[in-house]
Amino acid sequence: MPPEPAVSETRTAVRRLLESPDAAPFRGSPLVVACSGGADSLALAAAAAHVARHLDVPAQAIVVDHGLQVGSGAIAERAVEQLAGIGMSAQVVEVAVDGMGGLEAAARKARYTALRAERPSGALVLLGHTLDDQAETVLLGLGRGSGPRSIAGMRPLDPPWARPFLGVRRATTEAACRAQGLEPWQDPHNSDPRFTRVRLRTEVLPLLEEVLQGGVAEALARTARQLREDSDALGEVAEGELSRVRADHGLDCAELRLLPAAVRRRVLREWLSAEGVPEMTDAHLRSADALVADWRGQGGPALPGDFVLRRAHGRLRVETADRKPPNG
Amino acid sequence: MPPEPAVSETRTAVRRLLESPDAAPFRGSPLVVACSGGADSLALAAAAAHVARHLDVPAQAIVVDHGLQVGSGAIAERAVEQLAGIGMSAQVVEVAVDGMGGLEAAARKARYTALRAERPSGALVLLGHTLDDQAETVLLGLGRGSGPRSIAGMRPLDPPWARPFLGVRRATTEAACRAQGLEPWQDPHNSDPRFTRVRLRTEVLPLLEEVLQGGVAEALARTARQLREDSDALGEVAEGELSRVRADHGLDCAELRLLPAAVRRRVLREWLSAEGVPEMTDAHLRSADALVADWRGQGGPALPGDFVLRRAHGRLRVETADRKPPNG
Repeated sequence: MPPEPAVSETRTAVRRLLESPDAAPFRGSPLVVACSGGADSLALAAAAAHVARHLDVPAQAIVVDHGLQVGSGAIAERAVEQLAGIGMSAQVVEVAVDGMGGLEAAARKARYTALRAERPSGALVLLGHTLDDQAETVLLGLGRGSGPRSIAGMRPLDPPWARPFLGVRRATTEAACRAQGLEPWQDPHNSDPRFTRVRLRTEVLPLLEEVLQGGVAEALARTARQLREDSDALGEVAEGELSRVRADHGLDCAELRLLPAAVRRRVLREWLSAEGVPEMTDAHLRSADALVADWRGQGGPALPGDFVLRRAHGRLRVETADRKPPNG
Repeated sequence: MPPEPAVSETRTAVRRLLESPDAAPFRGSPLVVACSGGADSLALAAAAAHVARHLDVPAQAIVVDHGLQVGSGAIAERAVEQLAGIGMSAQVVEVAVDGMGGLEAAARKARYTALRAERPSGALVLLGHTLDDQAETVLLGLGRGSGPRSIAGMRPLDPPWARPFLGVRRATTEAACRAQGLEPWQDPHNSDPRFTRVRLRTEVLPLLEEVLQGGVAEALARTARQLREDSDALGEVAEGELSRVRADHGLDCAELRLLPAAVRRRVLREWLSAEGVPEMTDAHLRSADALVADWRGQGGPALPGDFVLRRAHGRLRVETADRKPPNG
């Protein structure tokens, strides 16, 4: 009997990602599934177990117990049992979450650190993010205006992380679980309206779907993919240009001026970051760029980390605020 | 007495755009304000009248009467009176709207055609689109997933069109009208929930502002600007590469393959469009690109307008479906 369509779709998604040209370096590598016991990651584990048998590579699950909810240990044990039922061995890893900078962010950081540390050497770690998660991420980034990079969403492959379900709907993972007799854990956080992401999922996206007559989640995911490709292309172009405009321990302003603005700002970001300047905002980059594009003899802008950018003799140089060259 | 802050803001916005480097070819040109009688365009007319006096350039308004609502003639006359009160002469232009392809789109097309035809030679036509309009446009494009180009929104300067208010809130134009004793026309279409844009404005955006705790409209407008710059930069890069990869009445596949995917697809779009192939979807471009990036000896894809793309001897060529070269 052929598998249910939802089950086929989840298996195909895993196989496609593993067989994509970008995943070539990981061919034959062991697979690790990060499993919370929820529908997305349980369906992912089932699909990965199937594909791994087919490809004859070892597969296992890691269940991270953040210890943040009463009974989290029991929830983890329940996930391990479900996984055993589909023939996948699983290991529970307990992590300590340091609440600095928001509990959600801290839990994510602790989880990723543990997964990276516990995976067998060279293994890919499969994560259960779905098309719906991607749509929420794009909308969140867009609403915060943090620029094209943030609305470009999550990458399908960003080793050791792999996200085979970025094109699969959440409802499909739920159907795949039902079809395989899996009983996913319903995390109450996923319906707690104190979380911004939950309100995007349960209020904003459904309204947007209604007003635009459907297809919004897919549209957001599709846009994310195109923006990611655009951003990658500009990054590649900027990298090539950076080596061309380097001059005399700095950058050549006349050469820089010939570049399109968006390439020029990327060249500047790349160069300043290599010079040791910490993460810059778009506003920093625009005022740095004004030394090239709108030069009226002005002083250079102060940059994060006590750096100053200066223009002299047609060259850009970065200096520490006390006028010493960095690392000097 | 200094003007009210809202009035200053509208005047500054007009002056900034006219004094921007991109507007240099229009320095000293006459200004035309497209005025509906609504708050946005009435505030724009008042600001443009002030700036035009200061710059000593002629300014006038054009009021387009689409004849779609009962009493539209009276509404147009009322706008002309309001404009007369601020010393701006105005002309009413009646247009016939052909409802093909949606009434909104048809009305817009008729309006733009009339404005282009009626403006004095060389004049810029100022349009009253605000930051809120830009945010709605971005959200609409995003929800439809029509790609980075559509979510890049409207351009501040796209001669003969100029949009000085893309950074000005709608509420500011209303405040500027009040402060100058102007009484804007309240178009009932602007609150009719049968229009998608109205529901975005009155339901989706307020909810998104609440969930994300404010700043959403500004964030959408900021993102649009960055995406526009990214898209322009990729367009420039692709144009340069197109001349480099041209070979022997076609394109050189080996050279094409070295380009980043997003640049390659733009090169293909540019080239195919110059060869006479009508507007292509992203799916068309991706299957065209597969002949370069994923070449397994497959046949070339059918393209709109009965064209076929073929790969032979390491060259891409476009042919009509009956194997004749285009224009041949």
